[in-house]
Amino acid sequence: MNFKQGPYPTHGMALYSSTDSFKHMHFQRRALGPKDVAIKIEYCGICHSDIHTGREHWGKAPFPLIPGHEVAGVVAAIGSSVTKFKIGSHVGVGCLVNSCRTCNPCQSGLEQYCENGYVLTYGSKDRDGSITQGGYSTFSVVDEDFVINIPDVIDLAQAGPMMCAGITMYSPLRRWQVGPGTKVGIVGLGGLGHMGVKIASAMGAEVTVLTTSKDKLNDAKKFGAQNVILNEDEIDLSKYKRSLDFIIDTIPYKHNLDRIISLLKMDSTLCLVGVGKVTEPNQINPFSLLWARSSFAGSQIGGIKETQELVDFCALHNIRPEITKISMEEIDDAWIKVIDKKARYRFVIDMNNQK
Amino acid sequence: MNFKQGPYPTHGMALYSSTDSFKHMHFQRRALGPKDVAIKIEYCGICHSDIHTGREHWGKAPFPLIPGHEVAGVVAAIGSSVTKFKIGSHVGVGCLVNSCRTCNPCQSGLEQYCENGYVLTYGSKDRDGSITQGGYSTFSVVDEDFVINIPDVIDLAQAGPMMCAGITMYSPLRRWQVGPGTKVGIVGLGGLGHMGVKIASAMGAEVTVLTTSKDKLNDAKKFGAQNVILNEDEIDLSKYKRSLDFIIDTIPYKHNLDRIISLLKMDSTLCLVGVGKVTEPNQINPFSLLWARSSFAGSQIGGIKETQELVDFCALHNIRPEITKISMEEIDDAWIKVIDKKARYRFVIDMNNQK
Repeated sequence: MNFKQGPYPTHGMALYSSTDSFKHMHFQRRALGPKDVAIKIEYCGICHSDIHTGREHWGKAPFPLIPGHEVAGVVAAIGSSVTKFKIGSHVGVGCLVNSCRTCNPCQSGLEQYCENGYVLTYGSKDRDGSITQGGYSTFSVVDEDFVINIPDVIDLAQAGPMMCAGITMYSPLRRWQVGPGTKVGIVGLGGLGHMGVKIASAMGAEVTVLTTSKDKLNDAKKFGAQNVILNEDEIDLSKYKRSLDFIIDTIPYKHNLDRIISLLKMDSTLCLVGVGKVTEPNQINPFSLLWARSSFAGSQIGGIKETQELVDFCALHNIRPEITKISMEEIDDAWIKVIDKKARYRFVIDMNNQK
Repeated sequence: MNFKQGPYPTHGMALYSSTDSFKHMHFQRRALGPKDVAIKIEYCGICHSDIHTGREHWGKAPFPLIPGHEVAGVVAAIGSSVTKFKIGSHVGVGCLVNSCRTCNPCQSGLEQYCENGYVLTYGSKDRDGSITQGGYSTFSVVDEDFVINIPDVIDLAQAGPMMCAGITMYSPLRRWQVGPGTKVGIVGLGGLGHMGVKIASAMGAEVTVLTTSKDKLNDAKKFGAQNVILNEDEIDLSKYKRSLDFIIDTIPYKHNLDRIISLLKMDSTLCLVGVGKVTEPNQINPFSLLWARSSFAGSQIGGIKETQELVDFCALHNIRPEITKISMEEIDDAWIKVIDKKARYRFVIDMNNQK
């Protein structure tokens, strides 16, 4: 192999069907284009959306499928026109590896809202017609415009979850102008939620966490929440009515939204970032949004510029995800734990740990 | 009767159960308090929410129930402290006849979002403990703070529908800052929708109407819409994707929201003002709001100050509802026509027409 140019032999963990367990897969990453960065992947976080995609909760997936969009690694080679990275740079890759680059959102650094269709890091048709494969693998080749610089102060094992969990929380917190004095609710204390608590706290907000897990109540406070509410359906939330300026809901399944909307102050927004099964849409009581002129919004991940901003924000404020490292062979088990709400708080695959 | 002080004998049309037809009911309005205005009701519009309430689509209703919250009439007597009206003044009453007056929304002229519970014009517990009765009747007594002045230039028969249909559209158009150049969508061309088209056009917006009624397409243009889309489920709306800055949805039943949300430009809002059955909540696909960071909001009627503003706006811009006058005996028939989408565009009960 000409390592400078590729193509690069890669070892990934793939699903061959939606009911399958993970199998080893050996394949080649594309040869290096002028703007490409070749990345030796060190770590990749496990995101709940990997599970939704792999289990076809969101529709048909292309198999074999190597998930993973919380990639952290080291630059192994660079194309002839690459300017932002050099060999040895610590880098991350999130959910996107390409977009049209010409529409208004792309031009505004909001590639996640590309009007002409972005290319996802896995399971998506790339510009060359091939299907992208994700970060549960040892190597990747990505256009430098979609690669994030990871400052040395951040341990690479902790960088991956910033690429999806972190940015998915940071982007709406910025969009809805959260800052000192804002009363922010975070629904669900998982991979996304726990990053949201840390980030919103660092922004100066007063954070209230709603979780269904009793054993996470203390953790929520440790992460920076002032208030923690056990969000079981039988628990009456009326004393918290109209108390929050903004809420981010991370729950990736259908759930009761009406009780959460009731917590919003007048003219405020509940923003959904957790995406459930398409066969089980969320329901909203026809009156829920009317009582206080509330809004129910959606936000997906973040743009590339924002993601760099989030990583730098985390470096500055010493924000890190809580992670559990696993080997490439332990992905099936980790997925089950994520579904069972047993992750504390993000599983990260260590590509150098192959039993 | 001491007409100056009341109590006032009143003839109303009442439901005695949710499956009943209307029956004549004779009762007395309360004696005049110092701030009360006694109103001889000339006209009352028929609103779809009268039907939802009377048929208990929104929960238990107190029977006998006299609906009606699009009231227009003439002041017959005033209490000792009344300053804003005199005998003979043309006045209107909308959905509210009282609120706490002390909470933030009330203090801001947004009584419809009163934190301590407003008093609805009918079927609501009044401050004296009695249940309010609405405008399908010959007389009413209302605190002057909840009475709207109707300029002489507006025919009283056309004033009623401004009190609910008009203000319900005007309030969100103002809140979301619709003005010259804004591309506004109006979903449903009924009592609310047709007022919305006229008001938004007068504000300078470019209006697109979505209606399921083929025979309303020409009317929409006549009312000021630039574009009209037949909104049948099998019709593909993809060519209108991301084309609108703001949409108001007036449909008072569960319907497909995802296709409407897809018409919103980036960072824009679909505002629901039509309230369906509580047993049939709206559904939203988990991805719908994420594609363009859209918001799904709710808005209910408007405050008293805003309602006066809307009436004055209609007077200034020569905006009037399209009405069909009916007698007190024709209410049952009119309700059926409203449900069957046969109203063109608002039925108004003429209290002086008792066959």
